[in-house]
Amino acid sequence: MTVEIICVGTEILMGNIINTNAAFLAEQCAAHGCANYYQTVVGDNAERLEWAIRTAMERADVVLLSGGLGPTEDDMTKEVAAKVCGRKLVEDAASRKAIEDFFHARGKEPTENNWKQALVPEGGHVIPNPNGTAPGICIEDDRCALILMPGPPEEMKPMFFEYVVPQLVAMSDQVFYSKMVKVCGVGESRAETEILDLIDGQTNPTIATYAKLGEVDIRVTASGATREEARATAMPVVEELKKRFGDHVFTLDEEVNLEQALVNLLLDRNLTVATAESCTGGLIASRLVNVPGVSEVFGTGLVTYANEAKQSLLGVKKQTLQKFGAVSEETALEMAKGLAAGSRADVVIATTGIAGPDGGTEEKPVGTVYIGVGVRGEYVVKRYNFRGNRGIIRQAASTAALDLARMQVLSMKEKKTGAFHGLL
Amino acid sequence: MTVEIICVGTEILMGNIINTNAAFLAEQCAAHGCANYYQTVVGDNAERLEWAIRTAMERADVVLLSGGLGPTEDDMTKEVAAKVCGRKLVEDAASRKAIEDFFHARGKEPTENNWKQALVPEGGHVIPNPNGTAPGICIEDDRCALILMPGPPEEMKPMFFEYVVPQLVAMSDQVFYSKMVKVCGVGESRAETEILDLIDGQTNPTIATYAKLGEVDIRVTASGATREEARATAMPVVEELKKRFGDHVFTLDEEVNLEQALVNLLLDRNLTVATAESCTGGLIASRLVNVPGVSEVFGTGLVTYANEAKQSLLGVKKQTLQKFGAVSEETALEMAKGLAAGSRADVVIATTGIAGPDGGTEEKPVGTVYIGVGVRGEYVVKRYNFRGNRGIIRQAASTAALDLARMQVLSMKEKKTGAFHGLL
Repeated sequence: MTVEIICVGTEILMGNIINTNAAFLAEQCAAHGCANYYQTVVGDNAERLEWAIRTAMERADVVLLSGGLGPTEDDMTKEVAAKVCGRKLVEDAASRKAIEDFFHARGKEPTENNWKQALVPEGGHVIPNPNGTAPGICIEDDRCALILMPGPPEEMKPMFFEYVVPQLVAMSDQVFYSKMVKVCGVGESRAETEILDLIDGQTNPTIATYAKLGEVDIRVTASGATREEARATAMPVVEELKKRFGDHVFTLDEEVNLEQALVNLLLDRNLTVATAESCTGGLIASRLVNVPGVSEVFGTGLVTYANEAKQSLLGVKKQTLQKFGAVSEETALEMAKGLAAGSRADVVIATTGIAGPDGGTEEKPVGTVYIGVGVRGEYVVKRYNFRGNRGIIRQAASTAALDLARMQVLSMKEKKTGAFHGLL
Repeated sequence: MTVEIICVGTEILMGNIINTNAAFLAEQCAAHGCANYYQTVVGDNAERLEWAIRTAMERADVVLLSGGLGPTEDDMTKEVAAKVCGRKLVEDAASRKAIEDFFHARGKEPTENNWKQALVPEGGHVIPNPNGTAPGICIEDDRCALILMPGPPEEMKPMFFEYVVPQLVAMSDQVFYSKMVKVCGVGESRAETEILDLIDGQTNPTIATYAKLGEVDIRVTASGATREEARATAMPVVEELKKRFGDHVFTLDEEVNLEQALVNLLLDRNLTVATAESCTGGLIASRLVNVPGVSEVFGTGLVTYANEAKQSLLGVKKQTLQKFGAVSEETALEMAKGLAAGSRADVVIATTGIAGPDGGTEEKPVGTVYIGVGVRGEYVVKRYNFRGNRGIIRQAASTAALDLARMQVLSMKEKKTGAFHGLL
């Protein structure tokens, strides 16, 4: 079943508001096995809105519209939809009563233009709106259903869940199952090369890659007659992806990000973490603190942006800074060791680098970042070369640091199971 | 001049990401006097993308596309655009070199599919992408210009400002002048009420408000025969806004954000700043460090998430924590004072609060945040009540903290000009 989404509103066309309705509706459609191939935004303009509705109705089984149901002259979605479907507008007694009740409950009287909201295209089905005055409307044609919803998300979302979802499920003949495999530490094109054979042969399940900064998410979506059948079709591919990317897969949970995955791992291993950041400047700590419940594993972070801070808070030697520079393997290592000594955390993460735009040299260009990670006295320092603006370099460095810590904790588990178990 | 926006990406159609690119491009088009009547989202599908491009080219003077320029098989915007315009794809030597450099700088070799990114439609103009491997492309037809940009906002936005804006300006027959008045510490509806009379009577210049988290940006756009004429039309309204919002206006510079405004102020006053963060967890430090040249004013930040860290690093008294709690005016004040003593910074910022989802009480619900700011020994602590999820509360708290520091520095200037001058 295919669904098209049309969002109506001049404020979206002007960029005054971000179109979160489209994202919400798209996600919900995907979750209920509806394919969405087009999303359109048009303003409060009869001619353009008519074109958008006609075009969508020619292609889709269901057209979801949001916006333009209000009481003002600008609001014309219902009028245009009625025209496209060849229906007259008639007053709906229940809607008139609901509008009256809505205002009376607030000690007010409806204004003349509010009665406009009680008009319904003939043969249309009224969808109640308990959170506002504009009811939704469903108009079913020979081959397409048009569902009109109000624009404000706090009115549209409850209406969607309560009335539209059951309708979509009833109309659909297939069920979908989708799983996200999130991979860190592998570039997008390398990741795709790695699974080209799987992608090339794909029909059911389908495989799609989503590149993020330092991360690749791979979505496996399967269809079937039942959820169990769809799941059984998807999971062998998910398992194959896990096999190919190994520890680089940090989660299969759609809602878990890298910092959450690290926090989960630390909770699982009963380990604590501390951070000492120069170029990332608090970004790693901030990402960790955004994870609810992080206090179990994280208590202290240092932002040692100045050399003096590296010396006084972490005990980095002045000679080290002078001889090798603040951005060096040696400094990163001393930062990590000083942090471990001062914080007594099991896992320490230290960063020092050149985020730009200035400060680069031929030997250490902008984007050079050293990341030091220590896990219970075992240290590793890696050099990275990121590219992009200051924000991108810092974001990429924080991702690499979180991932390096994750990988080091994982490798520790493998190498020293005995000692590890003893400590726990 | 009319502009259409097409965003390409299955992840938008699936609702995996919210289409912020469309909002950004729409806002920018409005600022440069371009009318936008349609926005379309299509997935990585050749047939549907071709339809979208053809349809847009029939209606608009400029079609802005974002997404689908990556190295994978899914990415096909360039190929489809070339087909629609009847151009062959040819290799661009400079683009090939840029890709080679990008990988060699990282000690890697490009994979075979990376070379795809060096292909350009014949007669097309390559737009450099300093923040990624996919260059932008401009193809000019008899009556329509097609501008292809990468999907990631951190690559698309700088490219838009640097290369696309000048082109839009060159193509337009009217000249626009636009100024952004950025306001912090005033709610959206209060800000709108404050300027309702200006908005109501607007024709030229127009006034549009954009609400962000803890910030309201007000864009004043005027048209004229020349830039000077347009500017002369816009500036009286800008001045009126400055008068109405006073010190709440933190910049008139489109590219300056709140943290940059604070850093500029500190540089100007020759003051240093340090941070001690609990609930914001490094976010304030990270926002400061994202400002190039921040090392002149910022050297040390502490993330004292645990009570022990507040005691050991900041000297917060155990009794204070026990009697008033970690989230209290008293703790915020001691954090700020301890930070001032330890860091010797002129300005100190301390935060402690309940970011949720758990930990709220009736007296101090989730979203309660105390922010302490000291400027050379004068302290203020304010209580805030933010609403939203953990991420939103932390972001709003970091904004409030940066703004409180800014306001305290400004008020210091007014109150103690003598002493201040003496110190400088």
